Amino acid sequence: MLERDFIQEQFNALAPYVRERYAERDTLVVSGKREVNDVLTDVDLEVQRRIVHAIQERWPDDMIVAEESGFDTIADTAPARCWFIDPIDGTQNFVRGLFPIFGISIGFAKDGVPTAGGVDFPIMHDTFLAARGEGATLNGKPIRVSKNATLAEARVDADIGLVLHRPAILKHIDTILSDAGQIRSYGAAVAGLCAIASGHTDAYIPAHLNSWDMAAGILLVDEAGGRVTRFDGAPIDLFAPFHSFAATNGPLHDELLAHLNGTPPS
Amino acid sequence: MLERDFIQEQFNALAPYVRERYAERDTLVVSGKREVNDVLTDVDLEVQRRIVHAIQERWPDDMIVAEESGFDTIADTAPARCWFIDPIDGTQNFVRGLFPIFGISIGFAKDGVPTAGGVDFPIMHDTFLAARGEGATLNGKPIRVSKNATLAEARVDADIGLVLHRPAILKHIDTILSDAGQIRSYGAAVAGLCAIASGHTDAYIPAHLNSWDMAAGILLVDEAGGRVTRFDGAPIDLFAPFHSFAATNGPLHDELLAHLNGTPPS
Repeated sequence: MLERDFIQEQFNALAPYVRERYAERDTLVVSGKREVNDVLTDVDLEVQRRIVHAIQERWPDDMIVAEESGFDTIADTAPARCWFIDPIDGTQNFVRGLFPIFGISIGFAKDGVPTAGGVDFPIMHDTFLAARGEGATLNGKPIRVSKNATLAEARVDADIGLVLHRPAILKHIDTILSDAGQIRSYGAAVAGLCAIASGHTDAYIPAHLNSWDMAAGILLVDEAGGRVTRFDGAPIDLFAPFHSFAATNGPLHDELLAHLNGTPPS
Repeated sequence: MLERDFIQEQFNALAPYVRERYAERDTLVVSGKREVNDVLTDVDLEVQRRIVHAIQERWPDDMIVAEESGFDTIADTAPARCWFIDPIDGTQNFVRGLFPIFGISIGFAKDGVPTAGGVDFPIMHDTFLAARGEGATLNGKPIRVSKNATLAEARVDADIGLVLHRPAILKHIDTILSDAGQIRSYGAAVAGLCAIASGHTDAYIPAHLNSWDMAAGILLVDEAGGRVTRFDGAPIDLFAPFHSFAATNGPLHDELLAHLNGTPPS
C-alpha cells in the first residue's frame, strides 16, 4: 500500500539521524512543555520538520496533525486524507533513557478511518508497519496479539502519566494495579500499543493521549487481532479532542473495561 | 580489584550465550515458580551453573547464594567471603520482552560488606561494575547519580511486583504514585538499581527482593554516590531474610522515605 510504503521510507531516512542524536544526547537542547516533566528537544522538532516536508512534497493537499508547534490543532470533522505524526513518542525516555523506549509514529487516515501506520524504534532497530486489511508486521514478519484471557495472568502496561492527569487515571486503574498478573509502565504510548500488537504485552492503558500518539498504534493493534476502544466500549474517534481508552489482545478486553469502569467482576 | 575483574570475565563469557538464547526465545523451556507470573527458564539455570562452576574452581571455599535450586538459602551470619548470583534478573522480560530489560547480577561481600559487584545487560551491551572505594562504571566510564532533589521533578521506578506482595507495596507507594514527576515500572531490580547509579532514574522502590537480586546493585548505587536503605532508614543487611528498601540519588532519600512510611511532607 502506497502510504505504508511511504512511512517505511521515512523511517529508513530518519532512524540513522535519531540514533546519532541519541548517542550524543548530553548535548540536546531540552525545553519544557506544559509541566516540569513534559519535555521537548530539538530532535522532536527536526524529525517532525522532515516528515512534514516529505508529506507536503508528495501530497500537498493532505491535512497534517502533529505534536509540535503549528500542527497540533485537530479538525472537528475528518478530512479525506490526514496524517498524524509524533516525531518522538517517549521524549523523556529519549532524554534520560538507560532503556531507549521511544519511537517515531506516523499514521494515516482516509475519511477518518486509519488505513496505514507505522512505529519505528530506532535504537532497537524495530519497525512496526500496518495497512488496513493487510495485517501488521514487525521487521517484515507478520505479528499477532497474545492469547492470555484473564487479568490474573496478564501483563498490563499502565501509563501513570503526567501529574496533571494522575488523580483520574489512578482511580480508574485501582483494581488493575492490585489484580493484574504483572504491571509495567514504560512511559511511551508507542511502546504500549506496539507491545500489544506483537504479543509481548496483553493490555495497555494510557493516561491521556492525543491523536498523533496513537493513530499508528491503534491500527497496528487492530490489524494484529487486538481491540482498542474507549472506556465505555465505543470505538476511537481520532478527531475527538480527548482520548481515554484501553488496548488489549481481545480476550481480556471486557474484563479490563469492567475494572476501568469501577465494576470489576467478582 | 580481583573480584570485580572476575565478574567482568564472567560477563564477557556469558553475554554471547544469553544473546543467542534470547534471539531464539520462542524455543525456551519455561516453568513456573511460586505463582503464575513468576517464571524460570533453562537459561537461568545454565547461566547460574556456569557462574557457580567458575567460582568453585577459583575459590572453592567461598559461600554462594543464588536464586535457583540448591543455593537459595541464606546464612544467618555473614561468612568471610560470599557471592550472590541472579543469573537472569527480569526473567519475564527475557521471555516476553519487546524491550530486553533483564540482566545478569553478580555481587561479592567480604565479612557481610559488599565489596565488588556487576550487572550486565547482554542485549544492550551495557556492563555496570563497581568495587568498594573505587567507584562505579558503565562500559568502563565512571558514573554518578542524578541531582534531582524533589519528588515532583523525580523519575521513580516503582516495582509493583508479584500479586503476592501487592497489597503491601501499593499501600507504601500510594502518595508516590500520585506525586512523583514520572513513574516507571520495568519489572527488574537490576534495571531499577543500575538506572539510579547511572543517573537515568532518581529513585527505585522494589516490591520485594532477595539478596541475590540486589547485592551487586546496591554497591553500584553506593559507589555512584546514591543511598540505599530500608524503609526505616537502617542500612541493608544482605543476610537478613527479607528486604524492603528504597534506593535514591541521595538528595531525594529523606522525602521518599517519608512517603513510604505514610508521612509525606505537606
